[in-house]
Amino acid sequence: MTFRQNHLLGIEPLHPAEITALLDLADQYAALNRGSKRGDALAGLTQINMFFENSTRTQASFEIAGKRLGADVMNMAMQSSSVKKGETLIDTALTLNAMHPDLLVVRHPHSGAVDLLAQKVNCAVLNAGDGRHEHPTQALLDALTIRRAKGRLHRLTIAICGDIAHSRVARSNLILLGKMENRVRLVGPPTLLPSGIDQFGCEVTHDMAEGLKDADVVMMLRLQKERMDGGFIPSEREYYHRYGLDADKLRHAKPDAIVMHPGPMNRGVEIDGQIADDITRSVITEQVEMGVAVRMAAMDLLARNLRARPRPVTA
Amino acid sequence: MTFRQNHLLGIEPLHPAEITALLDLADQYAALNRGSKRGDALAGLTQINMFFENSTRTQASFEIAGKRLGADVMNMAMQSSSVKKGETLIDTALTLNAMHPDLLVVRHPHSGAVDLLAQKVNCAVLNAGDGRHEHPTQALLDALTIRRAKGRLHRLTIAICGDIAHSRVARSNLILLGKMENRVRLVGPPTLLPSGIDQFGCEVTHDMAEGLKDADVVMMLRLQKERMDGGFIPSEREYYHRYGLDADKLRHAKPDAIVMHPGPMNRGVEIDGQIADDITRSVITEQVEMGVAVRMAAMDLLARNLRARPRPVTA
Amino acid sequence: MTFRQNHLLGIEPLHPAEITALLDLADQYAALNRGSKRGDALAGLTQINMFFENSTRTQASFEIAGKRLGADVMNMAMQSSSVKKGETLIDTALTLNAMHPDLLVVRHPHSGAVDLLAQKVNCAVLNAGDGRHEHPTQALLDALTIRRAKGRLHRLTIAICGDIAHSRVARSNLILLGKMENRVRLVGPPTLLPSGIDQFGCEVTHDMAEGLKDADVVMMLRLQKERMDGGFIPSEREYYHRYGLDADKLRHAKPDAIVMHPGPMNRGVEIDGQIADDITRSVITEQVEMGVAVRMAAMDLLARNLRARPRPVTA
Repeated sequence: MTFRQNHLLGIEPLHPAEITALLDLADQYAALNRGSKRGDALAGLTQINMFFENSTRTQASFEIAGKRLGADVMNMAMQSSSVKKGETLIDTALTLNAMHPDLLVVRHPHSGAVDLLAQKVNCAVLNAGDGRHEHPTQALLDALTIRRAKGRLHRLTIAICGDIAHSRVARSNLILLGKMENRVRLVGPPTLLPSGIDQFGCEVTHDMAEGLKDADVVMMLRLQKERMDGGFIPSEREYYHRYGLDADKLRHAKPDAIVMHPGPMNRGVEIDGQIADDITRSVITEQVEMGVAVRMAAMDLLARNLRARPRPVTA
Repeated sequence: MTFRQNHLLGIEPLHPAEITALLDLADQYAALNRGSKRGDALAGLTQINMFFENSTRTQASFEIAGKRLGADVMNMAMQSSSVKKGETLIDTALTLNAMHPDLLVVRHPHSGAVDLLAQKVNCAVLNAGDGRHEHPTQALLDALTIRRAKGRLHRLTIAICGDIAHSRVARSNLILLGKMENRVRLVGPPTLLPSGIDQFGCEVTHDMAEGLKDADVVMMLRLQKERMDGGFIPSEREYYHRYGLDADKLRHAKPDAIVMHPGPMNRGVEIDGQIADDITRSVITEQVEMGVAVRMAAMDLLARNLRARPRPVTA
Repeated sequence: MTFRQNHLLGIEPLHPAEITALLDLADQYAALNRGSKRGDALAGLTQINMFFENSTRTQASFEIAGKRLGADVMNMAMQSSSVKKGETLIDTALTLNAMHPDLLVVRHPHSGAVDLLAQKVNCAVLNAGDGRHEHPTQALLDALTIRRAKGRLHRLTIAICGDIAHSRVARSNLILLGKMENRVRLVGPPTLLPSGIDQFGCEVTHDMAEGLKDADVVMMLRLQKERMDGGFIPSEREYYHRYGLDADKLRHAKPDAIVMHPGPMNRGVEIDGQIADDITRSVITEQVEMGVAVRMAAMDLLARNLRARPRPVTA
């Protein structure tokens, strides 16, 4: 058994062999999703989606993943929950844990909240995004999409472009792509690049032409205006002119470079609509498709480990 | 195979033989719902309910219909979705489509939005109401209710009364009842009757006595105040006096005329509470019951066609 | 068959033998929840959760309970429902009833609303809390927790402390514990004790030391500030000083007394955080665990009776 984790809290703790094992299984689930769509790896298990931040897209992906594998899936609208009645995050976690769920999928606005919660429960916890920290299933679905398009997941040149500072997607991708021995370039305006980011061993540039030069993969990020409190907010027009991906800028990448975006897209802000829709370059809808497959694989592997380890009867 | 549609976008595209085939199957599902409640026509399929307008009643009906036939059913609260983050309707549709749903049930405030969406996806789309355009499953459940009560669905005199202008229910019913060769009368105040409505070959009157004369079916509509922006809003008392269905007005219809209402009812506005509750005349709860049966039949038929036709692997 | 009810509307109508039968079955389900988690007592049945008041915790518990036993479970967000469009509670109930549900779980802000609704439908109705009236599954889960911790459910001294006036939990517990021949003491400030409460044959005191003396069970209630409209609102600090459970006050109870709380807790208001977390005294997470088991048992027993009795085909 290569995959040894009890939780999926981030890419950071994963060994490259674990990433590969997960992607291999996800490839099988991608085939299942195009065919019978029906597995039973999670039959009899209870999956609870706890989203303290709205995300229709990610929640739907986890819900479909769980249901296709036979889990009982529950969505809890945490915005309207007991948290409002003065309950702490830990009490909420202990309460749910007492109902004996097996898989807890958590999104939370604060970095580290999901790790904290995982320490308090005896089920498997999956991080569906915590603050600016990690979003591991997004990085894994991106990796699977790249591997399927390029035939490998190493020695590629990958440009991650745009609003790096507010992006847990960028952070998880940076870690994963580094672990798999790729060359990563971060491209964005100085105000949207966090200080000290070069410690991850990646190149940093403020110029799209330089950043995209000979890239195999161009990964655009969403301009997250809702996270820019008080700080610099670029005008959309100015931003598009300098950092939005259009045909001109894309010409600097390799001729067979693929274009990625985690969605939801702001067309005409960080990406030109025609590029996004060009199925010879864009793998954006494949990313969504791989998202379901990766989440099925992650929950399957965690459930196997859950069944294998002794589990205290009460929390 | 009589039913040849890939989507159920409206009554307009349906052949009378398709309507009959669907109602015949719905009759079988109505019996199932009073018995074991358990079918497997949609086993292994993924049904997504995308409601861009709230409708607890219609969404519940589709959800029950899908679950009783074994589908994995997901509700997406589109008000709180990525649409708010600036994503277009088409991008939302492409995103969902990439997750390989089989049935997409869509309600949208804009006429034509559901048709547009159906062109972009490779699953079966069911229109659960789009603007003032169509609401096909409502017209089909009304037709099934009439056929069960009257023993036939042709050569009947049917009065559709009230707020015709804002009603996709009226529009879909008008088309369906016309196709099946019934005599349809529209009754309502001039301000609530759309201009040019007589092109559908129906009679139009502003007088309830005249409209209900010898009717086999009296179909009341809800006064949709939430859709009357800026225009004429009648006082409820005045409206009830002239157009609300009470015992006096009902006397003009045939002695065995049935009374219908799509719900939710405004008692004392468009209908007298006692008439609504009179089970010798009112078939209002049977309409709701037939709603589940008709939706089961529609999804079953669309799923059969979906399985029969070649389907591109990626969108 | 000991359990003869068609609905679970409150503890009031239950015979002590029915309570015992339900708790015995719940004990079996508690074991199932720690093991395979998979039953089929509700297979093919439709369960609808209608919550007119938000309660993430209780709704989740009923949802897990139903899904583990194979029911098709639907959550209806009644705040955003047809009720807003002017529909009455009864019409909403009749509408749902026409969809042939088997189990209707209802929470409503008005005392008596759930009873009223039960008279109009032909499925089994479970009260998940109505106004200040009853919350029967909470009292049953508390009873099961006590019975498991103490080895019996009679001749115990139980102190119910805090905001009695606003608490349907207190009311249902008082009735149940009285029926099972326990000694119940109510403890709280005069403003939070309803007048005439001593008619239930319980002792009433305003002093925690006196109320907790030699108690086997100390049941704390949540200070429900959201229900205190216009009336007396104590300062949290003052309240904690006089009525919050801390080590000093707990010393008055028996050395092996257990501590209970229905959740969600206000730590530092009605209970000290350390007491709540002390697993040698606190059974608070066990209460949540038993909640799922009790709801499985209640729905199973009601479903058996539902199958056994003749049921009119139409409502």
